[in-house]
Amino acid sequence: MAKIDRTKETNLLKTARGQIDGILKMLEDDRYCIDISKQILAVMAILKKTNLEILEKHLQNCVKEAFLEGKGDEKVDEIMLILDKYYQK
Amino acid sequence: MAKIDRTKETNLLKTARGQIDGILKMLEDDRYCIDISKQILAVMAILKKTNLEILEKHLQNCVKEAFLEGKGDEKVDEIMLILDKYYQK
Amino acid sequence: MAKIDRTKETNLLKTARGQIDGILKMLEDDRYCIDISKQILAVMAILKKTNLEILEKHLQNCVKEAFLEGKGDEKVDEIMLILDKYYQK
Amino acid sequence: MAKIDRTKETNLLKTARGQIDGILKMLEDDRYCIDISKQILAVMAILKKTNLEILEKHLQNCVKEAFLEGKGDEKVDEIMLILDKYYQK
Repeated sequence: MAKIDRTKETNLLKTARGQIDGILKMLEDDRYCIDISKQILAVMAILKKTNLEILEKHLQNCVKEAFLEGKGDEKVDEIMLILDKYYQK
Repeated sequence: MAKIDRTKETNLLKTARGQIDGILKMLEDDRYCIDISKQILAVMAILKKTNLEILEKHLQNCVKEAFLEGKGDEKVDEIMLILDKYYQK
Repeated sequence: MAKIDRTKETNLLKTARGQIDGILKMLEDDRYCIDISKQILAVMAILKKTNLEILEKHLQNCVKEAFLEGKGDEKVDEIMLILDKYYQK
Repeated sequence: MAKIDRTKETNLLKTARGQIDGILKMLEDDRYCIDISKQILAVMAILKKTNLEILEKHLQNCVKEAFLEGKGDEKVDEIMLILDKYYQK
């Protein structure tokens, strides 16, 4: 299978990392709780986006191939475990 | 108001940042989608925990003081906006 | 403490119940999975809204009174347990 | 395509409907906010479970067939829209 292009996910995660640095600075500066909380929610939104990107490519590549090779069922089990956890974050 | 101790939140965010570095490496190494996805969910769990920590201290300090000073209502509005977004991450 | 007006929550829950009846009919009629899934998400959105309504009134009434009577801390613990679960739905 | 067995989903939704009736009664009886809130979270958990059940069967049936017929891509788009909303409930 060809290597999946991860440019988008890489850029999203680098942005998330940069924002976490910013939040660490906010904590140090004793900034207002609600403002800190909003920034954490913003990072979570980026991680959510990254995860959906990964899942979409997973369906389009790995799961597709597995179905074509007649072994898609175990892939479905794997995805369901991830989706079950998705809800909990 | 006394400065709030942020040791716990700071440590959680530093852990999250370290894990993001690990995920960036996983992307580079072309690791399996589902393993990457699980790591992202782990970081989201840490951020969730950080956010709850911040919200708890916010209620115990800022909101409490606001109620005692008779101006708690605007604090409740602020929190509701955050909670409405919490659900969406 | 005065009885809290629950008209809004009652109407929301009655709507949710009506929509669940509709989804049961969709299942019987063998409707397309994605269309059924969308309807379930719509009911979850109504329940989320109901829950936020209840939580807002809880803060404005029960928690406020508790803080004024010097026993707000246990109320905060209760709310944090709810918020921790909120994330998981 | 054979009709999908919906016994499990039907039973889950009937349970959810019964619990909503119970919550409506709790509102009428002016029960404590936090207890009501916990019951709503319980109903949301049932709906989440129902939705995952539907999604799993969708992957195992409709998506599988679509991939085998060379038209899986639009199915992936549909699922991604649902997953994007899942996060928001």
